[in-house]
Amino acid sequence: MCRFLCYKGPELLLSDLLYRPKNSLILQSYKSRERKEPLNGDGFGIGWYTAQSSPTPCTFTSITPAWNNQNLRRLSDHVKSSCFFAHVRAASPGMRVCETNCHPFQNGRYLWMHNGIIEGFSQIKRRLRESLPDRLYNTIEGTTDSEHAFAVFLNLLGDPDLPHSANEIGQVLIETVHQLERWTAETKSTAPSYYNFAVTDGHNIAAIRYVSDPTMEPASLYYSAGGKYQCVEGECQFAHCHLGERSVVIASERLNENDSDWIRVAPNHLLIVNEELETRVALMEIERHGSRVETSSLYGRG
Amino acid sequence: MCRFLCYKGPELLLSDLLYRPKNSLILQSYKSRERKEPLNGDGFGIGWYTAQSSPTPCTFTSITPAWNNQNLRRLSDHVKSSCFFAHVRAASPGMRVCETNCHPFQNGRYLWMHNGIIEGFSQIKRRLRESLPDRLYNTIEGTTDSEHAFAVFLNLLGDPDLPHSANEIGQVLIETVHQLERWTAETKSTAPSYYNFAVTDGHNIAAIRYVSDPTMEPASLYYSAGGKYQCVEGECQFAHCHLGERSVVIASERLNENDSDWIRVAPNHLLIVNEELETRVALMEIERHGSRVETSSLYGRG
Amino acid sequence: MCRFLCYKGPELLLSDLLYRPKNSLILQSYKSRERKEPLNGDGFGIGWYTAQSSPTPCTFTSITPAWNNQNLRRLSDHVKSSCFFAHVRAASPGMRVCETNCHPFQNGRYLWMHNGIIEGFSQIKRRLRESLPDRLYNTIEGTTDSEHAFAVFLNLLGDPDLPHSANEIGQVLIETVHQLERWTAETKSTAPSYYNFAVTDGHNIAAIRYVSDPTMEPASLYYSAGGKYQCVEGECQFAHCHLGERSVVIASERLNENDSDWIRVAPNHLLIVNEELETRVALMEIERHGSRVETSSLYGRG
Amino acid sequence: MCRFLCYKGPELLLSDLLYRPKNSLILQSYKSRERKEPLNGDGFGIGWYTAQSSPTPCTFTSITPAWNNQNLRRLSDHVKSSCFFAHVRAASPGMRVCETNCHPFQNGRYLWMHNGIIEGFSQIKRRLRESLPDRLYNTIEGTTDSEHAFAVFLNLLGDPDLPHSANEIGQVLIETVHQLERWTAETKSTAPSYYNFAVTDGHNIAAIRYVSDPTMEPASLYYSAGGKYQCVEGECQFAHCHLGERSVVIASERLNENDSDWIRVAPNHLLIVNEELETRVALMEIERHGSRVETSSLYGRG
Repeated sequence: MCRFLCYKGPELLLSDLLYRPKNSLILQSYKSRERKEPLNGDGFGIGWYTAQSSPTPCTFTSITPAWNNQNLRRLSDHVKSSCFFAHVRAASPGMRVCETNCHPFQNGRYLWMHNGIIEGFSQIKRRLRESLPDRLYNTIEGTTDSEHAFAVFLNLLGDPDLPHSANEIGQVLIETVHQLERWTAETKSTAPSYYNFAVTDGHNIAAIRYVSDPTMEPASLYYSAGGKYQCVEGECQFAHCHLGERSVVIASERLNENDSDWIRVAPNHLLIVNEELETRVALMEIERHGSRVETSSLYGRG
Repeated sequence: MCRFLCYKGPELLLSDLLYRPKNSLILQSYKSRERKEPLNGDGFGIGWYTAQSSPTPCTFTSITPAWNNQNLRRLSDHVKSSCFFAHVRAASPGMRVCETNCHPFQNGRYLWMHNGIIEGFSQIKRRLRESLPDRLYNTIEGTTDSEHAFAVFLNLLGDPDLPHSANEIGQVLIETVHQLERWTAETKSTAPSYYNFAVTDGHNIAAIRYVSDPTMEPASLYYSAGGKYQCVEGECQFAHCHLGERSVVIASERLNENDSDWIRVAPNHLLIVNEELETRVALMEIERHGSRVETSSLYGRG
Repeated sequence: MCRFLCYKGPELLLSDLLYRPKNSLILQSYKSRERKEPLNGDGFGIGWYTAQSSPTPCTFTSITPAWNNQNLRRLSDHVKSSCFFAHVRAASPGMRVCETNCHPFQNGRYLWMHNGIIEGFSQIKRRLRESLPDRLYNTIEGTTDSEHAFAVFLNLLGDPDLPHSANEIGQVLIETVHQLERWTAETKSTAPSYYNFAVTDGHNIAAIRYVSDPTMEPASLYYSAGGKYQCVEGECQFAHCHLGERSVVIASERLNENDSDWIRVAPNHLLIVNEELETRVALMEIERHGSRVETSSLYGRG
Repeated sequence: MCRFLCYKGPELLLSDLLYRPKNSLILQSYKSRERKEPLNGDGFGIGWYTAQSSPTPCTFTSITPAWNNQNLRRLSDHVKSSCFFAHVRAASPGMRVCETNCHPFQNGRYLWMHNGIIEGFSQIKRRLRESLPDRLYNTIEGTTDSEHAFAVFLNLLGDPDLPHSANEIGQVLIETVHQLERWTAETKSTAPSYYNFAVTDGHNIAAIRYVSDPTMEPASLYYSAGGKYQCVEGECQFAHCHLGERSVVIASERLNENDSDWIRVAPNHLLIVNEELETRVALMEIERHGSRVETSSLYGRG
């Protein structure tokens, strides 16, 4: 269980979102409010796009905690981006703290983060890996369920160099969960899996808040899409603004106490953000019943 | 503000004290009970003596948190010692997290740890350093008040190769605080300094629980001297035992909930443990009054 | 390509072998003599047995170079052992420098090191992993060919808790190479693989010097079994000694210039050391011919 | 003794200079050509200016070697700058490898690097520190002669927020060496000190190639100011170009074998680069004679 944050909007300093909010992600690295255990100190990572340099994102990861990392502090005070991901990790039991297990994971233009746990992952790891083509099988460097889930996503996505719409990325994200749930169901596991995933190609973002057992509460997830994010005299908030200056923040926790800024993503829902910063929320209908998994397509309801 | 632990007694595995108690030091690295802020994740260190190898202790330090360090886990499961120190750090504001700032600090046969903060340290740092002979001036590698205090202690101690009794080491520890308080008083600072120090030569241990403002509560400190420390079937406690099998544990927090095992060190008191594992507690009479510091010798009262 | 060292004999300080010899392993971490590229600075590891504490070895690994690691320096000056492994790594291209890729690898009572490279490893990785039972499949934490080869060894060995003789361990080591060669042959690869492996259970050691293409020179490997290893006044050598005080050192390079101390392991030979410190060298007859691999058992020649 | 590189010119990707040249700085981290010992693997650092974000530079430092650091690799592939410094370190004996000892050192708008050693530094450290005002005394975090020399420079420079010309910065750099030499002369030391320093405020650069004993060869230093630096199809060179597209590279070693690209800085000379990329070289007349140091001002000759 971890905490993460996604940003898309006008270019801003990473520190404006990572350090300056009252309940910043850096604060959440040791004092998160909506996890039972407040600590997320098992390393961290950031990934950001600078369109003028490269279509692929730059990532910086470390096994030390986010709150005391000087390189992170300095990078955040100097790097500007109009699209970035950040993640503070709480390693699941048995998972090593090493750079290869740090989120966000990167492959080509894509970034991927996970807040959650795939129950019984060791029991599905083998068939998951076997399902992968060599080009993905051999890129896996760590041992996390999260990185393996990313490989499943990339496999379902097809050619990563083709452009994909926000809807397509969201649909593939749902299929990824569906696939993971099918494998898990085959193991007869009844323990709930938590899949708060976020993925981006630098243009579109898709994120889900999902738990496989509908009687459980998934990990927390919020978003804000009200206006331009601004920090003025120590107060960070979303200001009303002209069209074209809007920003979207997706975060495990609300970054400030201004509740009107934040919308809670409903359980088992998908949130997508397209290039024009339009957001859309859709119900994910996937349910594990014993060894059977039922699903419905994202757009099959209307 | 940090947490620490000292052990002297029959040889035991480090993990028996570092990992197995209910409120172990490793647990205190993220969930300490008697600090307002429970986190002590800014690196750690251990130092242990193995008489058969060397009179000097071996130290292992790291800037990563204690709770996820695999080297610490493995060393603790394999290293036995009859005298060791361990420390989990919460870096004071402005103090870097680097190995040179990790406790315990080592010099020759001595180990030194600190849980606290010297208020206004940057204002006394210069005169403190000037008071040191070259042999100590040039051994300082980090920037902490703690390491500098150790240099003051060593300077007051004199020849580190001569044997010193527990009483002498305790007396020098009090003089160290006295000296630090005098320098602080010269700066007209009125903020309280917290000096929970522990020091050992591998044979004797001295530790103090001290705050310069008597209206404040010093950082917590306990000791246990009741018997042999044992872990049996998951339960770790101090067992009644034959003479010669006793052990002493000094710790920032009680390691278990068996309160009868633990004695709270009274505020502004010194605790000393000699080679025969006899313990003695004495009042430290040092008081800062404006720019004046009053003291009384350890044994001067009666 | 890396450098390594194995020791078995009377208990000694690790630093006597790691730091004090003229061509010590620490020196080899940046100035090795018998590799074209002298640098082995991509992390390191040590593993040692202390029979009185545990039948399993303690390991200490780090991603920083051996030559400047202060924890290694201090541990080596304080830890004594009668059986230990040490390794300085030169990461193969594409292999990450992280703790999970550091040698020696440990599993139960066993330690494993590799100096070399399995050519085309990414092409055999999948079938190698599929051959493993879950208990081994899920213990793999890194991405090296070396750690995967260890899993193959452990699988061929069977129950790791049963005692195995030096001969048996040597035989399983040969079968491991044989199995790796068969998989490689199936890929039609003609590039040579280098397999200098060393393995121990704390009692017996087996090591091989092997290259799959007999026209190539395998990585260097030596051993010394002449007497007790001693460092006197800066001179480290193997002294004549009474029976029962002998020691065996196996090393990628001769540790001193006293050539009479060292025997070169012949190409494609196995060296075994049993509990009584008796050494035996045997030819490994494994040859890759296109997609066919021929072998002969260690003792099958009469 | 280390290796470093300075760049000023049209904005380019850091990797174009750090990784792509035949004798790149990353290659020099393990295979430098103009040092007796080719290894510079004791950590590294980069500092770069992005005028649109901040007048202060961003720095990224690490204690791991430059050649295998993935964060450096990724940052270099994504960060563009028109002025940056980079340094690969070979720690002097007794100097710890920790982030606080990594170059470049940063203070406000300034970056500072050193390739060399101040002989007998421990003997002048105390008086050097005493000469510093509190604002500089308390910013020193490490133990290197290099960082201390930077503090001397900043003290001589005066208000760091005032603009200073390249000439002024160069003059202060010479005065810094002069001051260090005077202190060293007082210790009666006769061993040579090596002072290849580089300093920048993001607009101007000053660098010196200096050894205190004129019979010795100072550490190597080159610069190139012939045109725009370009990498085309694997060939990196300085191309003829229009005015206003010129670039200047200052480097411990020539980055390619095209000798006409490079000018060797003469021993005990200062090189300055101003905002218009004009370069100027001047003789530094400082000589240590016993306990006396003679100097002449930068512009006193003409």
